[in-house]
Amino acid sequence: MFNAMLNPESVAVVGASHNPKKIGYVVVENLKNNNFQGKVYPINPKGGEILGFRVYPSIEDVPEEKIDLSVITLPAEVTVKIIGDVAKKSKFIIPIAGGFGELGEEGKKREEKLLEEAKKYGARIVGPNTVGIYVPRTGVNTALVVPERSGFPGDGDIAFITQSGALGLLTMDSVSLYDVGFSAFVNLGNRIDVNENELLEFFGSDEKSKVIIMYIESFRDGREFMKIAKRVSKKKPIVVLKAGRTSRGGRAASLHTGALGGSDAVADGAFKQCGVIRAYDEVELVDYARALAYGKPIKGDRIAVVTTAGGVGVVTTDYIESETPGIGMKMAELSDETKREIREEVVPFASVENPVDMTAQASDEHYDGVLEALNDDPNVNAILVYALFQTPLISEKLVDIITKWHRNGKKPMVVGSIGSDFALKMMRKFEKNRVPIYPTIERAVKALRVLRERAKILDYLEGSE
Amino acid sequence: MFNAMLNPESVAVVGASHNPKKIGYVVVENLKNNNFQGKVYPINPKGGEILGFRVYPSIEDVPEEKIDLSVITLPAEVTVKIIGDVAKKSKFIIPIAGGFGELGEEGKKREEKLLEEAKKYGARIVGPNTVGIYVPRTGVNTALVVPERSGFPGDGDIAFITQSGALGLLTMDSVSLYDVGFSAFVNLGNRIDVNENELLEFFGSDEKSKVIIMYIESFRDGREFMKIAKRVSKKKPIVVLKAGRTSRGGRAASLHTGALGGSDAVADGAFKQCGVIRAYDEVELVDYARALAYGKPIKGDRIAVVTTAGGVGVVTTDYIESETPGIGMKMAELSDETKREIREEVVPFASVENPVDMTAQASDEHYDGVLEALNDDPNVNAILVYALFQTPLISEKLVDIITKWHRNGKKPMVVGSIGSDFALKMMRKFEKNRVPIYPTIERAVKALRVLRERAKILDYLEGSE
Repeated sequence: MFNAMLNPESVAVVGASHNPKKIGYVVVENLKNNNFQGKVYPINPKGGEILGFRVYPSIEDVPEEKIDLSVITLPAEVTVKIIGDVAKKSKFIIPIAGGFGELGEEGKKREEKLLEEAKKYGARIVGPNTVGIYVPRTGVNTALVVPERSGFPGDGDIAFITQSGALGLLTMDSVSLYDVGFSAFVNLGNRIDVNENELLEFFGSDEKSKVIIMYIESFRDGREFMKIAKRVSKKKPIVVLKAGRTSRGGRAASLHTGALGGSDAVADGAFKQCGVIRAYDEVELVDYARALAYGKPIKGDRIAVVTTAGGVGVVTTDYIESETPGIGMKMAELSDETKREIREEVVPFASVENPVDMTAQASDEHYDGVLEALNDDPNVNAILVYALFQTPLISEKLVDIITKWHRNGKKPMVVGSIGSDFALKMMRKFEKNRVPIYPTIERAVKALRVLRERAKILDYLEGSE
Repeated sequence: MFNAMLNPESVAVVGASHNPKKIGYVVVENLKNNNFQGKVYPINPKGGEILGFRVYPSIEDVPEEKIDLSVITLPAEVTVKIIGDVAKKSKFIIPIAGGFGELGEEGKKREEKLLEEAKKYGARIVGPNTVGIYVPRTGVNTALVVPERSGFPGDGDIAFITQSGALGLLTMDSVSLYDVGFSAFVNLGNRIDVNENELLEFFGSDEKSKVIIMYIESFRDGREFMKIAKRVSKKKPIVVLKAGRTSRGGRAASLHTGALGGSDAVADGAFKQCGVIRAYDEVELVDYARALAYGKPIKGDRIAVVTTAGGVGVVTTDYIESETPGIGMKMAELSDETKREIREEVVPFASVENPVDMTAQASDEHYDGVLEALNDDPNVNAILVYALFQTPLISEKLVDIITKWHRNGKKPMVVGSIGSDFALKMMRKFEKNRVPIYPTIERAVKALRVLRERAKILDYLEGSE
């Protein structure tokens, strides 16, 4: 049902401007720059042309019965005046401006007016007070940031629903360093109409979205959310960053989006019941999403670790085995057969206890051999392998070798890599190959925990049919 | 006492090679490329010239009574044969090769021989089985990595003592992304002679080192460490990553460096007593070091948060106020005076409750005004400010404004920034200005906790005189 919004055949920009510094210009520019393939209708009483698109004096003049998506780039008081005309001609409307419910009574009245007109004509509203939507695949982007100072992700597997526009954009900017992609981004803003539950349902059936992540300060309807989340989690993972989990954080949230949070313990229990995985910050949100979108659930507690740096193996072991700080899982006891294979056939100088330390003399082929041996070991439930490119006998081929085992091996895999420019380049390759890759020990280990949790969720949800 | 090693006037490379693929060539090359200003004596029976340096057939031929530092790039069995000649002529010796105690009895005998000869002539040994030392300031670098695939940090305030060479190099590589600098790096290797306690004592008095970080799998002498650490921590902070804190991690450590760890609870208590701050991974180690080297101790629990992204403020508040996950500190209640100043004189549209949310309309000047107001508020013990460069009215000047308040303001400050390429560029500027900057919410908040801990340590150590 949100196809017309996320993959529109026509977009009107109501308030399109000839002035390159105005929002009404930038939105048109974004559509052009992102290669949006549908029709673009800038609306401005002055007419003329913007960036090669014909400008229509009013939305009524647009030669279509219904426009899929109309973005309103005008101030709140003007938005309210023209909403009827826009609603008459549009399936979806995104009023970007602030100056609504977040400012109190007068703003709330404006919201009522928006909603009334939208309902009259069967149009749906995202926002107001929103950065809107971004869909890399279709080129629709209503989010306004300074492009020289902000990265924008490409197409990917993650659907992102967020109540906070800024936190959402910052998160996408930060992970664009690793070329992480998104299937869609929707900022709910003041959420007077379209809400997270409908979007969750939609993305639940959207083939392009392999995982759904949410930043939420307050749920529109918690029971409804749980019902939908329970259904959706059977098919694909949901990760929620519920902000305002402390009473002081809740107070901050209420000043931010008018959210009224409940007890965090209650939220925690509810999330568990409906199979939702919790994240506590912007990094976990996307880290977990990538593990879940690219990786396989881990069906036991026993992890094998492969490294060429002994110290990295020790710190990883501590994090895996400890509860605080750590994930409280287990290091696998490798079978004698596995140890023999590793020692005799693969890496004679390596430590064959788990963590397997191939030392700085390791080569790409050693990785291949060790991963093969571990894949055959019934004592191993998952593998954490560190792809470290700093030693002499390792080459870029290591990315292909690890990708091969990730795709075709029997065991779920998580990959860690530590370094700067070159490592970053390799991490982008892993990301392109949809291998869950993490730039620190702790983040790699936490990805293991999430894949374990996913397996438990699937068991639980099947049992609770 | 380690000056001759870290700031040597002469370095001999015993086993220097004419073959660019050999370690004995790369060490000479590193000295040349790093602009090492002292004398370089390549030693090789073939004689000739390497990279413009005259090669001496044997170390005895070198025209100095004592060479400050001799690096031996030969295999273990050869190292043992020539150690006497080298020890006779050298103050410090770094035998790089493995093949010693880590391989069992025969290797242990080799170590005894090294030590015996060194003692005979009063030379000191770092290692063997070590990547050696790296001192950006003097250009001494014995660490062998592929330069195209590994970043190397510049000069800085952090002294790094590590038992694991690979973990140390990986850590330095990863933080070179942010241009973090080091005063010195020493890999203890098999630690047959020079140990962490002597180095701790030395860096404790070294003006270039503002903070000392250590990766340790086992202490050479725990009681001695505590005595020295307690003395040093009064002057400067010490951060220790004690790996092998779980029994399984300890087993991995014993296979790695022969370490025998004790109970982690005991270690925890001991660290507290002697004022050592614990890190649990490679990221915390340097994150905490930067907070402590650049920042001021925080003398109370009440934090003010400044942001332009509401959601970032909410998540930060949760992390500050919560214990799990979080740091269990408090959001400051701003004084009425502060609120009035912020609202009336600085940012009329902002939320003046803490977290102060200046919204996407904030400018550089708004930051300046808000930081001024918070600096005057007696209810505020420290400030966490997010430098977010994605919105239209923010410029690069923000770096200068925040740096000014960090340097001249009354309150300890920690800075967060979220983003990719441009944010990274700005973070490097902050780093250059010695402002503790962190690329994620959680890492910024944890830096606050460490500065609070440092204040408590100083109180405690003074009380325990």
